[in-house]
Amino acid sequence: MPSSASTPEFRPFVTWQGIIDWAQSHYRDRIFNKDEKIPTRPGLLYLVHRGAVRLVGSALASGSDNPTASDATDKVFLGFVGAGQPLEIVAQSPFNFQVYAHVEQTKVIWMYWEELDNWPHLRREVLEIFRYQHQRKLLWLCIVGQKRTTERLISFLKLLIEEYGEASDRGYCLPYPLTHAQIASAIGATRVTITRLMGKLRQQGIISIQEENLICWLTER
Amino acid sequence: MPSSASTPEFRPFVTWQGIIDWAQSHYRDRIFNKDEKIPTRPGLLYLVHRGAVRLVGSALASGSDNPTASDATDKVFLGFVGAGQPLEIVAQSPFNFQVYAHVEQTKVIWMYWEELDNWPHLRREVLEIFRYQHQRKLLWLCIVGQKRTTERLISFLKLLIEEYGEASDRGYCLPYPLTHAQIASAIGATRVTITRLMGKLRQQGIISIQEENLICWLTER
Repeated sequence: MPSSASTPEFRPFVTWQGIIDWAQSHYRDRIFNKDEKIPTRPGLLYLVHRGAVRLVGSALASGSDNPTASDATDKVFLGFVGAGQPLEIVAQSPFNFQVYAHVEQTKVIWMYWEELDNWPHLRREVLEIFRYQHQRKLLWLCIVGQKRTTERLISFLKLLIEEYGEASDRGYCLPYPLTHAQIASAIGATRVTITRLMGKLRQQGIISIQEENLICWLTER
Repeated sequence: MPSSASTPEFRPFVTWQGIIDWAQSHYRDRIFNKDEKIPTRPGLLYLVHRGAVRLVGSALASGSDNPTASDATDKVFLGFVGAGQPLEIVAQSPFNFQVYAHVEQTKVIWMYWEELDNWPHLRREVLEIFRYQHQRKLLWLCIVGQKRTTERLISFLKLLIEEYGEASDRGYCLPYPLTHAQIASAIGATRVTITRLMGKLRQQGIISIQEENLICWLTER
């Protein structure tokens, strides 16, 4: 399923090696364990050098008539950022974004936006990738707006697998595990519903679950 | 409420006038009536010169076990693009985006991305705005992921008013009308629920509806 529409990739190998060296010598890189929180600050640009990170958001609504309920936050899975991809977080009350290493040994580099002026080629690529990510989030919003949960689930899995999927014997598999709770948070459903629907999709031979809990979209059925 | 976090604005007045002249002499501008569909094609960049456009998306899920139901599309309101702002549409099956003039006499300019190379300053600003819009869509996804509809509605209205709101006597008002059905589609609720909740927010003095059906967020209450 991945096609010409898949993520634009960094190709400035020389630049990239230059960045890695620069980050190392300036103590701007760090390795994180799986599910470790990556500290992020607005105004900084992050580059995932190795592994993948998971972006999670939460909103704390104010102005509600029910202060007790509004204290509770719902954590929403907002997507992956894979190796070679940039990331930035603009915290904005009452919203809050968190970034977690999604796999072991995830390595992240960070820099100030102004520092990016030293690598104009990289800067342009970073902006092109945000342009692309913006389009992906529009698709995501389209999906979330669908009324039937089955439709949302199918479209959501396709969106992720189209972007991150790796070819396997029988189809394309997400290279990272994704829990039913994470899927549920992303498409406005309950964990229980997602578990039930995922079972149904498996029975229908639309998806399969590979070892280490990876979701695969089957192409031949 | 609009603050430093509000939309970055085009400031290259000279460039902007140059674009307008270029568009006119190359037949690349057109004026649309309210709710008229603006034809868009992937690969083209659109600039809203005057007025505002409304972005609407729909998904047609395939692979479902219920072909009749999956023929139905849900139209989802995905936001406004105001004067001086860029827009692009990357159509991708099974998703479909439509752009409509949201107010009378909306004027739109279009060009190929390659043509933008003639205005490197504008190109950079366009990419910066897409970077900004990407962050706004992350906030939007956060909102849509909240469990309680009231929280979603309050956060959503704040998001829009923060971005587009204009100061009035008692608060900040959206400069464009927005129907309950459009709000409902954006935050995964029914039209009836939105109508009920909007009534409640008005009673509580959190919002008011000004003439021509404009939603205002009241600051003093």
